[in-house]
Amino acid sequence: MNEKNKTINLKDLGEFGLIDRISKKIKSYQKTTILGPGDDAAIINSKKNILISTDMLVEGIHFDMSFTPLKHLGYKSVIVNVSDIYAMNATPSQITVSLGISSKYTLEAIDELYEGILLACDKHKIDIIGGDITSCLSGLTISITAIGQALPKNIVTRNGAKENDLLIVSGDLGGAYMGLNVLQREKEVWKNNPNIQPELDDFNYILERQLKPEARKDIIELFKEIKVKPTSMIDVSDGLASEIFHLCKMGEVGCQIYETKIPIDSKTYKTSMDFNINPTVSALNGGEDYELLFTISQKDYEKIKNNPKLTVIGHITNKNQGINLIGNGDTITPLQAQGWNHFNN
Amino acid sequence: MNEKNKTINLKDLGEFGLIDRISKKIKSYQKTTILGPGDDAAIINSKKNILISTDMLVEGIHFDMSFTPLKHLGYKSVIVNVSDIYAMNATPSQITVSLGISSKYTLEAIDELYEGILLACDKHKIDIIGGDITSCLSGLTISITAIGQALPKNIVTRNGAKENDLLIVSGDLGGAYMGLNVLQREKEVWKNNPNIQPELDDFNYILERQLKPEARKDIIELFKEIKVKPTSMIDVSDGLASEIFHLCKMGEVGCQIYETKIPIDSKTYKTSMDFNINPTVSALNGGEDYELLFTISQKDYEKIKNNPKLTVIGHITNKNQGINLIGNGDTITPLQAQGWNHFNN
Repeated sequence: MNEKNKTINLKDLGEFGLIDRISKKIKSYQKTTILGPGDDAAIINSKKNILISTDMLVEGIHFDMSFTPLKHLGYKSVIVNVSDIYAMNATPSQITVSLGISSKYTLEAIDELYEGILLACDKHKIDIIGGDITSCLSGLTISITAIGQALPKNIVTRNGAKENDLLIVSGDLGGAYMGLNVLQREKEVWKNNPNIQPELDDFNYILERQLKPEARKDIIELFKEIKVKPTSMIDVSDGLASEIFHLCKMGEVGCQIYETKIPIDSKTYKTSMDFNINPTVSALNGGEDYELLFTISQKDYEKIKNNPKLTVIGHITNKNQGINLIGNGDTITPLQAQGWNHFNN
Repeated sequence: MNEKNKTINLKDLGEFGLIDRISKKIKSYQKTTILGPGDDAAIINSKKNILISTDMLVEGIHFDMSFTPLKHLGYKSVIVNVSDIYAMNATPSQITVSLGISSKYTLEAIDELYEGILLACDKHKIDIIGGDITSCLSGLTISITAIGQALPKNIVTRNGAKENDLLIVSGDLGGAYMGLNVLQREKEVWKNNPNIQPELDDFNYILERQLKPEARKDIIELFKEIKVKPTSMIDVSDGLASEIFHLCKMGEVGCQIYETKIPIDSKTYKTSMDFNINPTVSALNGGEDYELLFTISQKDYEKIKNNPKLTVIGHITNKNQGINLIGNGDTITPLQAQGWNHFNN
């Protein structure tokens, strides 16, 4: 019987059938994976330290199915997890994937979601070593645990920033947030008039920042190449301001950030202005950019200064000086952390 | 201000506040935990192999809040995960805990859930090294990843059963399933007449099997003590029949199970009869007992034969002989696997 001509129902396939179907598509990239899915637990054999990070993505809270392609969602759900491993200056090597799926999802939908998951695994050479699949009463829940590896001497935590260190961010900020704003606006337009096609072509860059973000594996590789070990590091998931607060709190230091130095893409800038949002605010509080924010010793400045992927946005000060944003005309504003509060938003 | 006099709202506390609150209650038992919660990832430094297992528990699918105390639920959600680590003949050492919480849950409810989680961690000497907390649109979702450790030579997988090996199960079976039946019956009675108090006192053993199961750490310790390494092992989560099928499929062997040998507690037996369910069927297909099912070489029989915690229920045969249940009067019935299908039930 031709596989393509069969219509397979999620109910008929069942949990074990679905796991079998997915297992067949899983490739293995990592020598440290001794045993993958199919037993009570997976086995990893590594001489390095093991890093563990986990994130749960929930429909209606973290993503809106009315404008999120499932393949992108699968991709993003892996990226947000491996980004945490890179933020420790480590290499992601394995993930587990647990899904809670309500009855509105078809087998084709799950296949599409997994296509994105597998694409991200291929890009970052990650093995899927386990997971769980269950039904749930509403929506879709994706819970991923990422496992990474690093030599103890290479691991960078959040707490090492020292006075006079430089504060650096990769890429640009605020794009993911403005992408979300555009998607939500077009959704409203469409709701009021379903015959109107959304105008999205112009917004490719910021839409991709929102729907299909990338984790900065390249920056971790760069550190190795140019022999720089950051003194502290975090990934930008909740917004620049929130992450700066984390680094300063953990390192017991203060910080000066220069508003004009914050890297903002021209499309993000323009869209932010169109939405009457100060672009600096989009960058500071938007979140979901998955860039790396880190501090380095001043002696390493020469090694990074001309790299177009990196921007020095400030420097670390004494704790007593607080956390301040230096604006145009040298205005000094104490920074407010407005991390994402799921229970409020 | 007296902490007890403050009414704290989940919304006001926010994600970071809630994480802080929980973090303060977390103890550390494991030397291999180099870094716990609070950074992008946790760090584990072990010279042994690392084992990873994950399970997702969803309200309305895996548990019914109308008769599940939150503390028990927290306890059980850890147990079902560490049970998988024990089933590899390994020792659980760390877990991550991710929660999706809808607005119907109060801070007190989350505290209660965590009380059970922490109790299980204390019992099994497990560190909570990370997790995620998010709101969700309905119900409660608990996703736990368990990390364990073992020397490679000690790990027992599902696939090692050999012809003539003995098939053994710990404890007794079917109790968790009958406990669930009693709870569901009393719920119906209560729905029809809310003034009637449920009659549960008589069912303590089977209710505890359902609501607060235990993972068989003691059996893993016993193996070490009596120097027995099972040839294959799995925990009984989906039901004895389903687990036997897994061991036989993975080991490419057959099996004979003796119906009269299957250990069933007297309360389970009696309740099953009262519900007009054949007690053997409860044991074979009920699931959630979290006992260990394993095979050993016949040469190890002397070491286990008088242990009251263990019952030999059959032996491994050639694959061609199939998987058969030998009933009273030597009737031979090919066994059917009726694993729990979440998408059907």
